[in-house]
Amino acid sequence: MSLPPEFHEIAKRVNNWGRWGEEDEIGTLNLITGPVVHEAAATVRTGRRVPLAVPLRQDGVQTGLIPGRVNPLHTMIAVNQEMFGPDTIATSDDAVTMGLQAGTHWDALPHVSHGGRIYNGRPSGSVTVHGRAGHSGIQTVRHLVSRGVLLDVARARGVERLDAGHVVTPEDLDAAAELAGVTVRAGDIALVRTGQIQRYLAGDREAYGYPSPGLSIRTPEWFHAHDVAAVANDTLTFEIVPPELDGLWLPVHALHLVEMGMLQGQNWDLEELSAACAEEGRYAFLLTATPEPFVGGVGSPVAPVAIL
Amino acid sequence: MSLPPEFHEIAKRVNNWGRWGEEDEIGTLNLITGPVVHEAAATVRTGRRVPLAVPLRQDGVQTGLIPGRVNPLHTMIAVNQEMFGPDTIATSDDAVTMGLQAGTHWDALPHVSHGGRIYNGRPSGSVTVHGRAGHSGIQTVRHLVSRGVLLDVARARGVERLDAGHVVTPEDLDAAAELAGVTVRAGDIALVRTGQIQRYLAGDREAYGYPSPGLSIRTPEWFHAHDVAAVANDTLTFEIVPPELDGLWLPVHALHLVEMGMLQGQNWDLEELSAACAEEGRYAFLLTATPEPFVGGVGSPVAPVAIL
Amino acid sequence: MSLPPEFHEIAKRVNNWGRWGEEDEIGTLNLITGPVVHEAAATVRTGRRVPLAVPLRQDGVQTGLIPGRVNPLHTMIAVNQEMFGPDTIATSDDAVTMGLQAGTHWDALPHVSHGGRIYNGRPSGSVTVHGRAGHSGIQTVRHLVSRGVLLDVARARGVERLDAGHVVTPEDLDAAAELAGVTVRAGDIALVRTGQIQRYLAGDREAYGYPSPGLSIRTPEWFHAHDVAAVANDTLTFEIVPPELDGLWLPVHALHLVEMGMLQGQNWDLEELSAACAEEGRYAFLLTATPEPFVGGVGSPVAPVAIL
Amino acid sequence: MSLPPEFHEIAKRVNNWGRWGEEDEIGTLNLITGPVVHEAAATVRTGRRVPLAVPLRQDGVQTGLIPGRVNPLHTMIAVNQEMFGPDTIATSDDAVTMGLQAGTHWDALPHVSHGGRIYNGRPSGSVTVHGRAGHSGIQTVRHLVSRGVLLDVARARGVERLDAGHVVTPEDLDAAAELAGVTVRAGDIALVRTGQIQRYLAGDREAYGYPSPGLSIRTPEWFHAHDVAAVANDTLTFEIVPPELDGLWLPVHALHLVEMGMLQGQNWDLEELSAACAEEGRYAFLLTATPEPFVGGVGSPVAPVAIL
Repeated sequence: MSLPPEFHEIAKRVNNWGRWGEEDEIGTLNLITGPVVHEAAATVRTGRRVPLAVPLRQDGVQTGLIPGRVNPLHTMIAVNQEMFGPDTIATSDDAVTMGLQAGTHWDALPHVSHGGRIYNGRPSGSVTVHGRAGHSGIQTVRHLVSRGVLLDVARARGVERLDAGHVVTPEDLDAAAELAGVTVRAGDIALVRTGQIQRYLAGDREAYGYPSPGLSIRTPEWFHAHDVAAVANDTLTFEIVPPELDGLWLPVHALHLVEMGMLQGQNWDLEELSAACAEEGRYAFLLTATPEPFVGGVGSPVAPVAIL
Repeated sequence: MSLPPEFHEIAKRVNNWGRWGEEDEIGTLNLITGPVVHEAAATVRTGRRVPLAVPLRQDGVQTGLIPGRVNPLHTMIAVNQEMFGPDTIATSDDAVTMGLQAGTHWDALPHVSHGGRIYNGRPSGSVTVHGRAGHSGIQTVRHLVSRGVLLDVARARGVERLDAGHVVTPEDLDAAAELAGVTVRAGDIALVRTGQIQRYLAGDREAYGYPSPGLSIRTPEWFHAHDVAAVANDTLTFEIVPPELDGLWLPVHALHLVEMGMLQGQNWDLEELSAACAEEGRYAFLLTATPEPFVGGVGSPVAPVAIL
Repeated sequence: MSLPPEFHEIAKRVNNWGRWGEEDEIGTLNLITGPVVHEAAATVRTGRRVPLAVPLRQDGVQTGLIPGRVNPLHTMIAVNQEMFGPDTIATSDDAVTMGLQAGTHWDALPHVSHGGRIYNGRPSGSVTVHGRAGHSGIQTVRHLVSRGVLLDVARARGVERLDAGHVVTPEDLDAAAELAGVTVRAGDIALVRTGQIQRYLAGDREAYGYPSPGLSIRTPEWFHAHDVAAVANDTLTFEIVPPELDGLWLPVHALHLVEMGMLQGQNWDLEELSAACAEEGRYAFLLTATPEPFVGGVGSPVAPVAIL
Repeated sequence: MSLPPEFHEIAKRVNNWGRWGEEDEIGTLNLITGPVVHEAAATVRTGRRVPLAVPLRQDGVQTGLIPGRVNPLHTMIAVNQEMFGPDTIATSDDAVTMGLQAGTHWDALPHVSHGGRIYNGRPSGSVTVHGRAGHSGIQTVRHLVSRGVLLDVARARGVERLDAGHVVTPEDLDAAAELAGVTVRAGDIALVRTGQIQRYLAGDREAYGYPSPGLSIRTPEWFHAHDVAAVANDTLTFEIVPPELDGLWLPVHALHLVEMGMLQGQNWDLEELSAACAEEGRYAFLLTATPEPFVGGVGSPVAPVAIL
């Protein structure tokens, strides 16, 4: 099967190839300028900090569904070892094996490709087993700090969490922005809350992953229109699964990462943030979410923090 | 051998056990309050962001000197894989094995112990191979954002980088604070620049690690007096190696982590930051440096960003 | 709870501590002498070789039940890489992360301890996170070749596979030896077939692991009486689970590994061997089953081969 | 550069594509038949067993020269853990991350390719990051037992070990076979001793790897003429490095693996075997060397044992 016309039409409308030059590797992150960050810092009022990452542990969100994307195998390589003789200072040390997208993470732009292309029209063949991502690897992000806006779709719809079959639409995003009292603007990082991660937090990993609510193929146009710099949500796949259009898996990935050149994040825990925003009556904040600089990485764990 | 009296005397003076209650797990991070963060955010002027992590790669800073602390083995588990049939959207995915302190990192408080104790007087036996750090694991940090202050000791001394034998003293820190024009205050994160990481950046990993300039056993009192919340530098070991006092390895680790309960970071690349601060004529900024939440981790990679 | 009197009585009867000297690290492998191996080689008639290992793959026998004992994460680190220029000879290379007991394996003697002791009365504290097994690590085995005898309990009982609740008794072993027409003798390696691995081969990993038939706490005396050198079977846990005596987990492990100093293997696929032995009408053969020499390993994958 | 005419001429003479049918995946292992194994077993006289693997440890033979082929990172995941309550039976468990060719190993046939082909003319594209080796993966070997012959080139030349620049020639192999008093025949596994591994055993890993003596591009014809089933030696690269023909790296790999379909092994420790053979005055023995069955593996650790 090839991709349906509907996909290609949207792709054309949101495409950012060449927008920041042919050499560009970071896409919509170009929208985060010094002034944007300065204004983002100015949103801080109470200095309250809310972490958005799920703890990294062997019984993490992965269930084996995605081969190789293993939960952290975290082992001690030293425990109170007196390397320098008895009764000296002892050290403990540890190591890990994990999928880079196993927990709370960012997808790098080359995480997906279609038609042999990644962001900015580069060949998908620039991702190789030897060099990994030759372009737009996660280390090219360098820093990721901007204004974050919580689009609390579940709260805007008056539910604790969206149903598994709920397709988040542009209209949902509008309603959430209205609840937030925020005009989403260029360089913002949008955090879309479905509440789905409650299932994982309650111990049901299978139900968390599938089926799941997620973002409609129509939402990339919304992010494009608002010039959002990056987007993350609280689901395993980001998109609705099973998919909105029969047999078309991961269309939003392709629109965000390939066409727009926009980072996309999954498995973000937005529960505490939702409560904090509701409590403080404001949904915009300073967000820090810099990925670990794996050279050529197509993804990275991240420990995002919202500063209110 | 047991630890010398000099160590114990300093330990007594800087000890914070019980200061934030017997149940406390995070030590000097308690000094980072909402108002501290609010003021830190107010330091942002241009929105310029400077990343402080060294790229994560197989030829990273580790040389095999510290057994098990392996550089990242970063492998692709999928490359443009068309999971859903030909001509569909293809995915690339990756995984990593690495020491949690292999690159730019934070030591968690239980990373070292002495006399059978970790921070707050808890038994070092609370670190085990099964549960890893039972107290003060790196996931207890949750968020780490505050005012950062660059103490550019190399620049204050008018050298490109300190000699391998240079012991950074409290007087060096005073001089650097004076250069910075900053009064270090409660909740600040101090970044101490020696310039030593230039050796790694120039490709000489062996020379980077050993011998190395580093912080004197007298500096923890300086950080204690200023109520610094955390400290990081641009060396492999943080401390001077070979050590200041004959045969006494890692005393500063023990004073910071065990006695004070203060996070300590290594392998931070402060070169670009040094240039930026000198250029802008200011050495205080908003610093974001939240570790990845490995449950029970005694360390974690971190991708810190200074926001000027 | 402490271990019941029944356990201690059997332990006393099968104990081999000191039998081969206080310095001994390999236990019953001492029974495999040159003449034993010479006679074992003489059992070869047709040269037919039957492999006994299950393939190593990410969907292997582990289900997550045993934390950290992860199935192989097997990744390519090079794929047809032309390291020496275009149109030269290209190489592919791979790496793995896995639990050493994840697939077909041997337990090393220090895999279990009780009462603070491992084989030959050494302290269990000789197993550490730094040095791993200080005594009787799997590398001390060096070579493992002897006469193998298939004790086909399932076939002797006339069933395709034993029920999950079936406790394999000494009487079962006698019946299987009679079916085999073999007198089990000093230095033999006994392979006990329950048929349970059929469940894994049929794709049901959960049912393979638990509940499972397995060996009774009474069988170690049988192996002791026959001076068997090592024993393996076709189950995940070796022993019956849930256990024979209420709340007493792994008693056979403790008797074999700690008291007798006898290697024990699990997840051996004895199906093809069962058919071959029945077809040829003989159940004794040359068996090669040398573990990989992980220094200090408490287990190792093994690729055993029966040569008929 | 393309491969020189000399390579192609030899390739034509030793090519085995189609010799065992178009569907064949195991090449010269077809030469190991039941009768061959039966006769191999008949060579056992004293039952003396000599292990040929180097211990697997973090300071193994790899130096970082071959990216990703990491020495074993072997960590404990449990140490005397009382999973079932206090004073019960405690377990220790371990895990490893390693390059599959990091220690004593077999190369699988698809380990190298040239001209887009692997053994039997299959496309090299059958090796992928997802499926790994689609043909002739190491698991297709299933069992590897045959007569082994030690070709002790160093001893035949009257030296303790060959010089780094020594190219092992067919004439060297003839001289070693004459010393051995053995006629190499179809199905034999040839072990070629240079003595180079003494450098590793003496602690000099760098000198072990490079420069190194190794087999000439002329030797594959010798193995082909004798219908050898597999060949291994005691060097890191198998071949002489720097290479015999200027700029032509790994020609022997390509001739053995691609053209002949013959397994090739490296890092085999033949020192103890050399002494044993000289002592017993015989150089042929039963050899067991079955790789671990990694599905799609392009290599595997192996723990070979010679049985004299």
